[in-house]
Parts: sequence; C-alpha cells; structure tokens
Amino acid sequence: MTIGRGADVLTTEDLSRRDIEQIIGVADSLGSAVETRTSLDLLAGKILATLFFQSSTRTRLSFESAMQRLGGSVLGFADAQSSRATGERAESLEDTVRTVEHYADAIVIRHPAQGAAKRAAEVASVPVLNGGDGTNQHPSQGLLDAYTIWREKGTLDGLSIALVGDLKSTRGMHSLVYTLSNFRSRLFLVSPPELRFGDAVKARLRQRDLKFHEARSVDEVVSEVDVMYVTRLNKEGTGSAYERLLREYPRITLDTLRGCKDDLIVMHDLPRSDELGLQIDSLVDATPHAKYFSEVKYGVMVRMALLALVLGAVEPGGECL
Amino acid sequence: MTIGRGADVLTTEDLSRRDIEQIIGVADSLGSAVETRTSLDLLAGKILATLFFQSSTRTRLSFESAMQRLGGSVLGFADAQSSRATGERAESLEDTVRTVEHYADAIVIRHPAQGAAKRAAEVASVPVLNGGDGTNQHPSQGLLDAYTIWREKGTLDGLSIALVGDLKSTRGMHSLVYTLSNFRSRLFLVSPPELRFGDAVKARLRQRDLKFHEARSVDEVVSEVDVMYVTRLNKEGTGSAYERLLREYPRITLDTLRGCKDDLIVMHDLPRSDELGLQIDSLVDATPHAKYFSEVKYGVMVRMALLALVLGAVEPGGECL
Amino acid sequence: MTIGRGADVLTTEDLSRRDIEQIIGVADSLGSAVETRTSLDLLAGKILATLFFQSSTRTRLSFESAMQRLGGSVLGFADAQSSRATGERAESLEDTVRTVEHYADAIVIRHPAQGAAKRAAEVASVPVLNGGDGTNQHPSQGLLDAYTIWREKGTLDGLSIALVGDLKSTRGMHSLVYTLSNFRSRLFLVSPPELRFGDAVKARLRQRDLKFHEARSVDEVVSEVDVMYVTRLNKEGTGSAYERLLREYPRITLDTLRGCKDDLIVMHDLPRSDELGLQIDSLVDATPHAKYFSEVKYGVMVRMALLALVLGAVEPGGECL
Repeated sequence: MTIGRGADVLTTEDLSRRDIEQIIGVADSLGSAVETRTSLDLLAGKILATLFFQSSTRTRLSFESAMQRLGGSVLGFADAQSSRATGERAESLEDTVRTVEHYADAIVIRHPAQGAAKRAAEVASVPVLNGGDGTNQHPSQGLLDAYTIWREKGTLDGLSIALVGDLKSTRGMHSLVYTLSNFRSRLFLVSPPELRFGDAVKARLRQRDLKFHEARSVDEVVSEVDVMYVTRLNKEGTGSAYERLLREYPRITLDTLRGCKDDLIVMHDLPRSDELGLQIDSLVDATPHAKYFSEVKYGVMVRMALLALVLGAVEPGGECL
Repeated sequence: MTIGRGADVLTTEDLSRRDIEQIIGVADSLGSAVETRTSLDLLAGKILATLFFQSSTRTRLSFESAMQRLGGSVLGFADAQSSRATGERAESLEDTVRTVEHYADAIVIRHPAQGAAKRAAEVASVPVLNGGDGTNQHPSQGLLDAYTIWREKGTLDGLSIALVGDLKSTRGMHSLVYTLSNFRSRLFLVSPPELRFGDAVKARLRQRDLKFHEARSVDEVVSEVDVMYVTRLNKEGTGSAYERLLREYPRITLDTLRGCKDDLIVMHDLPRSDELGLQIDSLVDATPHAKYFSEVKYGVMVRMALLALVLGAVEPGGECL
Repeated sequence: MTIGRGADVLTTEDLSRRDIEQIIGVADSLGSAVETRTSLDLLAGKILATLFFQSSTRTRLSFESAMQRLGGSVLGFADAQSSRATGERAESLEDTVRTVEHYADAIVIRHPAQGAAKRAAEVASVPVLNGGDGTNQHPSQGLLDAYTIWREKGTLDGLSIALVGDLKSTRGMHSLVYTLSNFRSRLFLVSPPELRFGDAVKARLRQRDLKFHEARSVDEVVSEVDVMYVTRLNKEGTGSAYERLLREYPRITLDTLRGCKDDLIVMHDLPRSDELGLQIDSLVDATPHAKYFSEVKYGVMVRMALLALVLGAVEPGGECL
C-alpha cells in the first residue's frame, strides 16, 4: 500500500517503512510553509470536509490549517449537535458520507465508534482520513509523533523510546506504536498494569522482533531513554477504577526527569491536563527537553503531506531517511 | 420576475417556466466543476453568510460547497446557540440581517418561522436566499429536485411524477410542486389524508390545469410513474397523531417497487431515516432507480447557479430545455 | 507604542493620538473594499484564528469578514463547548494559545475573564487581538466607535459626546473612552449612579484634562450633544438590582430626541434589545440620526486596518485627521 492519489488514511497498521519515509519526506518539503508562515497553492480550488462527531480543537484546526496552507478551503461540522448526524432520527454514517462526498474532495472524520472511518471509506468516492475512531486509531497523530522524533533525533532507528500512560485506550498511541514497528528502536512501555497495550499490539512487536520492556514507573526508565512520550488517561472504559488510576497515573516533573539524558525529548499529544492537574508540570516547559508544542507545528506539516498525497498534488517521491 | 443580479430567492411560487429553465441552464454550465472536482473563480472575493437558526448538515454544507466551488468564501453560524440571535435578550431577525449584510455579499437563511426569509429580504441590501422557512418554502431544494428530474429524464414535461409522504408540512415539497406547476407533467400525490397538500397548492395546480390524483398508497401508482419523490414525516404539528402517522407512513422497499417502470427514478430529500428506520430501504440503493444521492450532487450545481445569478456573475442566458 | 507588524491589540489605554489617527487612515484606505463589495489580496495565504470562549455574532463575523476581504482565511471555534478549552479537564488558556499559534498567523480571542487576551499575548509568537475580555476592554469596538464618529463628524475634537448606559461594565465603552481621552471633546456620562465609570477611567479623563459631566438622564443633555452613544445593561455583576436597573435604564425614542441637534448621531454597539424591549426604539431607525448599523460597516473597515497592520501588510503611514 502507498499513500498516493485517492488513498485513504485509516490506520498505520498497514503502512510500510517506505510509506512512512515518503510521508516524512513530503512533510519536510511542504511543511516549511508553516515555519515561514506562507501558503502554497497546491490544493487551490480543493475542498476538505471535516466531520467531527466528537468535538476537538487540535485535530480539527490542525487539518483546517494544513488545508488552508495548501491553498484549499474547508467546510464541515465541529460537533455532531449542529448536524442531523445524531439524535433519535439520526441518519446513518454511510448516508452522511454519501452526501458529503459531493461537497468536498476529501473527508476527515472523527467518531466515537471504532471502525467508523473504515465504514466511511467503504462508501466514499473521495479519500477519507481517520481523525480518530473510538479507541482504535488516530493515524495522523501517530505519524506526526513519528515525524517529531525524526525531526528532533534525525532517525527512528536505534533509539530508546518510552511510551507512558494509557497505552490500552489511546488511539494516537496505537497509531504511533504501529508506525514505530517498522523501525528498529527499543520501546519502554510505562503504565499501570490495567492500561497496557492489548495483545494485538504486542503480537505486532514480537512479529517485527522489536524489543520492548514493560515498566510501572518512569523512574525505572528515565536514565535510559532518548524519547519520552506521555499521553492522557481516557476516562471511558475505566469505570469505578478511574479515580484510583488517576492517582496512580505517571506524571512528569523536573524531579521525575532527574538523571535523564541531556538530549531527552519529552512529548505529549495534548491537552496535558486532567482533574488532578497537569500530567507534565509547567516547569518542564522551559527545559530543552520539552517538545510537546513543537509537535503541534509538526502536526500541521504532516497533515499537509497527507492531504497533498491523497489529493494527488505531490508524488510520493523517494527515500528521505 | 427574473433571478438575476440582486434578486432574492425566497419562494418558487413566483418563478416562471423561463426562470426555471435559465437556472437549469446555468446549473448545467457551471456545475460541471462539481463533477470534475475543480473550482471556478467567478465569485472570487465574494462572501456568503450562512445564518442557520435551525441546524442543518445538508443545506448549509451544500451552499458552502457551491460558494467555494465558485471561488468565494463563507462565514456565518451553524446553529442559533452560538449567536446572540436567540434567547431572552435575542435581537430581532431584522437587526441581525441589517448587521450581517455588512459582512457578506449574499445571505442564506434557515429559520423555524414561516416568512422569516421574506422579512430578511425586506431589510437586506444584499440578495437573500431562503434555506427553509418553517413549513413554507425551501426553494433551492425544490429547484434541485426539478433539476434532478431534468438531468435524469431530459424534460420536465410529459412525465408521471409521484410525490410521496408528508406533503402538508414539507417545505421542499412545496417548492417542488410550485416549480413543476410551470410544466406539463401529471402528478400522483401519495400520503395519509392528514398530510395532503393544502388548498393553496391545489388551487395553483387547478389554475395551471395540471392533472393530479391523490392516492393513499404507493401500490396504486407504482406501475405508472416515471419519478417517485419521497420525503420525511415532519414531527412538528402532528401532535398525538405522530406515532400512528409514522406507522402508516409510506416506505419504499424492493417489494414496493415490483412492477415499476424500468427507468423509474426514486428520489428523497434526505435524511431518509426516522424512528422506525429507513423510509427507503438500503437494498434499493443498488438499483438503477436510486437517485437520492445524485440529488446531493445536483444540489451543489443548482446552488452554484443561484449564487452566480444573484451575485451577477453570469447572465441569465437563453432557453435550455 | 505603535500598532505595526507583530503588535498585539489588547487595550486602547496605551494608544496615542497618533496611533489612533494611523488606524483611522488605514481603515479609510483599505475599507473602501467593504463599500464596493470587493476583496483585496493583501493577506492572501494568511490565516486568522478566532478563539471565542464566549459566543458572539457580531465580533466574530466582523473579524472573519475583515480577514476574508483582505484575501485571508479563518479557522477557530465559535463557542467553547466545541473545544477542549473548557470543562473539568480543560486545558489552560496558555496551552491553547501555544497550540493555536501554529495553526494561524494572528489570533482574535474573546474570553469571560479580564486579562485573558493579555495572558494569551504573553505566550503567543503571533499577534493577539482582544475581542473582549470580561468587563475590561474590547479595543476593536472602541476604535470602530471612534472611527464612526470621525467618519460622520470629520473630527474627534471639539464635539459634545454623550456616553449613555452601563458605563461601569461595558468593555467596549471602556475602550472608547480611553480612545477619546486622546482628543479634545466634552463628555456627558449618562447612567444610573451604580453604573458610572470606575475611578481609573475618571482619573485618566482628569489627567488628560478632558471635561466631563455626569448626568442621570438623557433629557439633561440631549439638546447639547453631537454624538449619543448608547450601550446595553450587563446582567453580570448587578445581582438583585438587575430588574430595577433595567426599569431605570435610559431608553431612546423619538420623544427622547425632541430638541436634539439636527446633526446629532445616535450610536449603539448592538444588540439593542433586552428583556424590556429595545433600548433604541425602531422608529428612530428612519431618522438621519441613526448610525448604529453604519457602525457595523465601519467595524469591518477598522478590523481590516488592525489585521493588515499587525500582520505587516501596510505601513502605519502618516497623519490622516
């Protein structure tokens, strides 16, 4: 599979190393517009529909910014309440997609149900990008995380990477780990036991012969890792355990980072706040380790690459790593 | 009356056959951009305001897509909650319009009250397009329905057309039947007795000497018609009869269509779902009869035509039928 | 301080006479596009983010229109509900801004908390425009009000100007009076005693040696003034006094205006409605005094000027008065 003209971006499970390298290459080449604060006209006259059945600031606005930086325009809804798409007389997802495909040249969809983006892609005649489906996948997030590591470290091989927090239910984390499974880094999986990756992810890691170690606390791994990626605790599905998990949940402070490598990068998919406060203390922001806001910028670049590729505005191109 | 520069599009009641033919001609000529997925620059630099006091996916996004395909841009609100336009301290519709006319070059308004678009047009210095006012009119819907018939049948004369469902309260159906009253087709009006067209519509049909037959079930007419247009049951105004009407409501399945003409087209203004399921069974989707999603595409074309005409970007042009 | 490339627009307190004259000059020069209903391409490829933590029709759409008239595009949210920006797990304003600055080239923010725009500007690498922060400031409103007076009267000096209503809590009124404090007009401050300007405003007026007279009723001043600016009663902060204040609140009718100067202009920041009806009777609309809808048009022009200035698309230029 190649992410080229007409392709859907539903999951990172079926992406090859070459696919990912191509996306990184295109992100590098187009994304400089984000840094110079200019726009291109590669997608002038093209329309992106954003169907957000779950509300979002980051993902929706990031895709909108990417589309606008490429000269295209955007329409859609920011939450299901302002559309016919929910409620007792709701129309089916398939009918909504068969409608919206006539309004736009590509569709980004976020939906609470696992598999929703795939169902949309099955009926759509235009490319569908998964903006998060239930606890399943959030491929543009996983790819922007991989791109962040690549930008900051120059490689996705030979690193020690800690994935910290709710590994079980975080869709972006799933998309990242499948992306990383194409490269040769060592993973440290840090989470309360209930929140570990499911069997499918572990099977993939074993199949690709990727070394991984499960740990319960950041302390066990902090001195060894080059990358520390932290994510939120998802309330959904935790039931009565939520309060306890919240208290046990890994939190990063200057103290936690004592003894870390000088060039450790700390990432987070944001927002970093929960009922107990910040998962990464704001004192960390001023350290050279903090890369969680850089991820936002890289995210626009990666989404520019995905949109330009599936709308056929750029060629997948060659090696980039 | 002609739909030309500066005109409002409030109702189809006052449209002539020539008006409608002109709109069809312009839709044909501009709308190919929808099929080739390109954009024009006819309305570059122009702004459309979408004032949706009732939420909508289809109508709002269709107008947005039409405006963007013509190179223009869009601003507005998708539901009255995010504006000062409702609530105990709500400003009057007239004041809202006198404000928004300075932000945009044309206004599309959807409102729960009959006559709202007309009131808006009375104070606006820019063209107002009625995106649905109460149970009264929804002219762009009626025109896109007529355009769909014209595209699929090559004519609006000499056909047998079944209008099925809630004829009383469906504003798009009102707009369609007034449009059709300019042509020479035979109408079959299929609905529970409580949901028949009101006297005004029937008077118009008689005045124009248009043959129509009222029926209670699709079975009575299915073998005769070239076009079958189905619409939703409107909950509003049915009171305690709603549950019963829902059970009695016409529903289209493969079974219902047994004995129909080979080239029957089935239309629906969508969504086609209610509390009892689909008004048109999804098995019908795969038949050559199903045109309800084509209507969506034709809708963008017709709205492009309306916007281009009222903003003076095209000439009304000549005959097209 | 000069409103030039990269500047924030947070308050009018620190604007000089020269700053204001420059903004007026640029509004005059760019704003003719609003009157001719054309667009410029000064900000083509630039993106404005609209972060409305309080909903708004007027301010949000006015900024959107201004950005689109300059050829730029817009993204954002219209109310905090459709973003992660509120709720028990809300992210901090600072984190939201550090995110959105990567999506857009300038940010307009409206927020219920005083000082919110300043906090945003402190962390943002792009210009921040205050679209209203609590009861503090609403600088683009104050500047468009000043521009309205200047357009209608040709000067901001030597006039008699009545400011009528809730002077204490109306942020736009604060922005206007600080703007006017740079000029040499006489102010009549008409309000119930509880709703007078606070000490800071009065201290500024005294410091600038601006004559002002406090009055309780419009009758006392109507024959003397050239400009009468009326504003809404803010419910927030009035507690149990709200009902009484509403009854005592100044209202403008044809009767109130008896004996006024022929060229009196009446302004209002709109909406002009409250629970008791209209603060300016609709019979006033047809008189030559009514300028409250012209203010809306001038508002787009002033916001075009502010956006073009802070994004470096025009030079601050010379004197204009």
